[in-house]
Amino acid sequence: MPVSHAPISAFEVPDEAELPEDIRERILAVQDKAGFVPNVFWVLAHRPAEFRAFFAYHDALMEKDSGLTKGEREMIVVATSGINHCLYCVVAHGAILRIREGNPLIADQLAVDYRHADISARQRAMLDFAVQVATASHTVGEAERETLRAHGFSDEDIWDIGAVAAFFALSNRMAHVTAMRPNDAFHLMGRQPGEG
Amino acid sequence: MPVSHAPISAFEVPDEAELPEDIRERILAVQDKAGFVPNVFWVLAHRPAEFRAFFAYHDALMEKDSGLTKGEREMIVVATSGINHCLYCVVAHGAILRIREGNPLIADQLAVDYRHADISARQRAMLDFAVQVATASHTVGEAERETLRAHGFSDEDIWDIGAVAAFFALSNRMAHVTAMRPNDAFHLMGRQPGEG
Amino acid sequence: MPVSHAPISAFEVPDEAELPEDIRERILAVQDKAGFVPNVFWVLAHRPAEFRAFFAYHDALMEKDSGLTKGEREMIVVATSGINHCLYCVVAHGAILRIREGNPLIADQLAVDYRHADISARQRAMLDFAVQVATASHTVGEAERETLRAHGFSDEDIWDIGAVAAFFALSNRMAHVTAMRPNDAFHLMGRQPGEG
Amino acid sequence: MPVSHAPISAFEVPDEAELPEDIRERILAVQDKAGFVPNVFWVLAHRPAEFRAFFAYHDALMEKDSGLTKGEREMIVVATSGINHCLYCVVAHGAILRIREGNPLIADQLAVDYRHADISARQRAMLDFAVQVATASHTVGEAERETLRAHGFSDEDIWDIGAVAAFFALSNRMAHVTAMRPNDAFHLMGRQPGEG
Amino acid sequence: MPVSHAPISAFEVPDEAELPEDIRERILAVQDKAGFVPNVFWVLAHRPAEFRAFFAYHDALMEKDSGLTKGEREMIVVATSGINHCLYCVVAHGAILRIREGNPLIADQLAVDYRHADISARQRAMLDFAVQVATASHTVGEAERETLRAHGFSDEDIWDIGAVAAFFALSNRMAHVTAMRPNDAFHLMGRQPGEG
Amino acid sequence: MPVSHAPISAFEVPDEAELPEDIRERILAVQDKAGFVPNVFWVLAHRPAEFRAFFAYHDALMEKDSGLTKGEREMIVVATSGINHCLYCVVAHGAILRIREGNPLIADQLAVDYRHADISARQRAMLDFAVQVATASHTVGEAERETLRAHGFSDEDIWDIGAVAAFFALSNRMAHVTAMRPNDAFHLMGRQPGEG
Repeated sequence: MPVSHAPISAFEVPDEAELPEDIRERILAVQDKAGFVPNVFWVLAHRPAEFRAFFAYHDALMEKDSGLTKGEREMIVVATSGINHCLYCVVAHGAILRIREGNPLIADQLAVDYRHADISARQRAMLDFAVQVATASHTVGEAERETLRAHGFSDEDIWDIGAVAAFFALSNRMAHVTAMRPNDAFHLMGRQPGEG
Repeated sequence: MPVSHAPISAFEVPDEAELPEDIRERILAVQDKAGFVPNVFWVLAHRPAEFRAFFAYHDALMEKDSGLTKGEREMIVVATSGINHCLYCVVAHGAILRIREGNPLIADQLAVDYRHADISARQRAMLDFAVQVATASHTVGEAERETLRAHGFSDEDIWDIGAVAAFFALSNRMAHVTAMRPNDAFHLMGRQPGEG
Repeated sequence: MPVSHAPISAFEVPDEAELPEDIRERILAVQDKAGFVPNVFWVLAHRPAEFRAFFAYHDALMEKDSGLTKGEREMIVVATSGINHCLYCVVAHGAILRIREGNPLIADQLAVDYRHADISARQRAMLDFAVQVATASHTVGEAERETLRAHGFSDEDIWDIGAVAAFFALSNRMAHVTAMRPNDAFHLMGRQPGEG
Repeated sequence: MPVSHAPISAFEVPDEAELPEDIRERILAVQDKAGFVPNVFWVLAHRPAEFRAFFAYHDALMEKDSGLTKGEREMIVVATSGINHCLYCVVAHGAILRIREGNPLIADQLAVDYRHADISARQRAMLDFAVQVATASHTVGEAERETLRAHGFSDEDIWDIGAVAAFFALSNRMAHVTAMRPNDAFHLMGRQPGEG
Repeated sequence: MPVSHAPISAFEVPDEAELPEDIRERILAVQDKAGFVPNVFWVLAHRPAEFRAFFAYHDALMEKDSGLTKGEREMIVVATSGINHCLYCVVAHGAILRIREGNPLIADQLAVDYRHADISARQRAMLDFAVQVATASHTVGEAERETLRAHGFSDEDIWDIGAVAAFFALSNRMAHVTAMRPNDAFHLMGRQPGEG
Repeated sequence: MPVSHAPISAFEVPDEAELPEDIRERILAVQDKAGFVPNVFWVLAHRPAEFRAFFAYHDALMEKDSGLTKGEREMIVVATSGINHCLYCVVAHGAILRIREGNPLIADQLAVDYRHADISARQRAMLDFAVQVATASHTVGEAERETLRAHGFSDEDIWDIGAVAAFFALSNRMAHVTAMRPNDAFHLMGRQPGEG
């Protein structure tokens, strides 16, 4: 008996025709740019108001200028999503991370064991803080902020690290609540050196 | 040496004059309605784009019509925030919960030990699922959804329970990252029977 | 269907008439002083010999002179009982703590997240030790005692901190075994500034 | 450099001459009966009022008639103290258990891995409950009591199981706070078949 | 400052010339077959006697005929190594698994979140048992064996599942003790459909 | 109803007549030396190829010359097996440890609470590392190796500590998978001072 692919969501997924216009446009724009529509767009479109807030929050953190590079922000996503066993976020953001960093190995390293990844000491401190926010946020305090400052992070950077970890705490949980399945295409993207 | 109150945030808090107009209006509207401004508005106003997305997400989940009453959604907030040791969310949403339910005891019960609260079997099932999403979301699946359906929850309700727990996973972490302090006023609100 | 209050114990609770004379006198004395009888007295009276030992132990730790103020000892009770999810002890001793400290906020802070409470560095060290005794007592040793001494605690104080945490490890568990319900009155006591 | 024996307590231990009369008598009585004085008596005599309450509580649970045999109560002590890594209680009560049961193997089995001990299904259910009280007492409720009733335990027995586990939660923590060392003699007692 | 690749071991790695003849032959045979030498051979060759026992054990479990397919045995390796955060085993055995199953997605799924992988119910039961052996082996017993038998596993199959999980408990720990780095080549192997 | 002894394995145990010659010889040699056959030999003989690899690995670590004494290597076995709740390894290797060290107390101490054992600071550092390998090996790194070097351990010693902990991670799991029962004789061996 062949094992069949799971559907992309445990909930109903809207047809393109049913989508509110702004959501349809966002999805078409993504398709134009990436060549396919990441499943998170279809799955969350089940709830348009939440969809809009989710992507507004995502873009506010991940697309803006920051003391963290876009690649570093993806490192936080992949490392904390690995700790949280979130397949969607590890696979989709792992692909983005490989491409942003031009590094075919980094996503596997961060998802499985960020302590043994090819990253700088500063990035390791960034991930230690992010993982602490992901797993025991009540224990972070001034001592942790001082450690980050000693690695050259500004207070705005500290907010960014914490906020990305916090946002993907939400994102990981929505992926699990909906049994969100990553697109097959993500698994292979960025795995050739220099790809991206 | 007297112990002084901690500030409301570990990060800079904007003056009212600095606020973008839409955020200023939202804050004034809250003040008009509640008689004071919950600190979460001041603390998150440090980042206007994130502020807008945060409250859009919050309202999409907490203000809309749902198979869950508004009081039940606050139960999820208080129970999961208690598990996460989030003082801001327990104290602020505990006040809202007491008022919504007209029950001066329920917030303390849910924050400390939801298994011994004065709630229905259906609400207990709702909180078991929410706490599982909060603490080990990768373990929720069809079996958990079936349990909820057996208590009369629709699939839309299940999304709501999971999404509220997921959103406050973010909210709890932002409260910890910013060392967000609850307004003193929340501690006492709704503690008189019939208040609200 | 209204949710009814749980009974005060999962076990039989004696009538006043059945009580041994010394226990009846103790209960009447408490009633005279507090205006009501905390449920722990009724619940544990089911077992007179254990009742006597329990309160003898309680008084030996909580009523005597010590390098810790009575308020500080209540801080230990509330913080460790919060960690242990013990509703009875958080609610009943939270009330006593608010009154002893003349501080309407302190019990909620310690029960939910003692790391973000308005306490001194010395009190924070006290609670770090108490929580370690509550959750992983096999890991306390000379290093922990040295940390406490550096905050000005004597060896007698260290015993007191450890013994209060240890006694409420018992007390929390008896509350859970008996499903002991706190009196409604405790929830509101000491919540007005200057009350007590 | 030889490794020296640790002292029996991290705190001061009184001389016999300093002891209050009732405590001196209790200690002499134990010595007469056992041939030596278990260190717990010396260590806790540092605090006479706590000593009296501790042993009154101990005797109320461990010496009385109960639906549990004295050996079964010692099984609870050894299994929960093993989980808590309490050397004093495992070694001292392990000796008592071997003698009470006339079984040289049972204490090692229960201390290390109670799920693989030579005990009855009823005793296994008793220990499952006791260990749950020791490690996560907030999760015990009516379902757990029903399981015990199905194995023939009365409600009084259930209180006994829970209370013994709760008392040794205190006892284990006092042993760790004081770094209480077991008498060497306990290690060997009851290890010959038929001894006792 | 570029982040440099970590070395393949925290310990000395022998030159080919230093290798005992049998180990040199094994390494050359692997190179002939795979086209490169997996780093585990070089890293463990630091200790020839352990090397020989390690690969004898490995082959006894992974190369023999069994009621489990070779692919299923690799599933156990990848799922338990993911839980243990072992980068070497996830990456190296993930490659083998993709090739054995002809499935480019399966290794990522099992390493991150085996509960959401494209596997049969029988394979899910196999992995539940393997993960329990990996993380809390003292809790497996007759009930777990019965569950496996209900999925059609024989007692010999049960031994195999447990033994593979047990062997990689060792293997994961040796990889961490030596900071063993996976060959870059493994990351990409088997990622094209039909490859292998 | 008397509680009967569990069998020595949940799987079939071969008769002596069925054993391959090399395994029969090894078993007879052990019997000659020890006066009885430890059950691990009978239980693992169910799988001759695994038996050979297991004991080859065991001997490579435990019988060779090392910077760790044979007694110290047994300390690692007993401390990590205690953490893992492995009765077979605690009881069998506890006996060997008592004899190797001429110390009737050391095995009970290490199995229950190695932090309170009569060992040197160097041995405590050794066991801290071994327990970290046993329970969270992904967190060991250069900092841990530096701590060991500061206690005088060479890199070869560090490999030995880690490898013994890793091998018994396997061994503990095989004991649990097979429900391996220790020989009664082990419980008493080495408990008389000077025995051995």
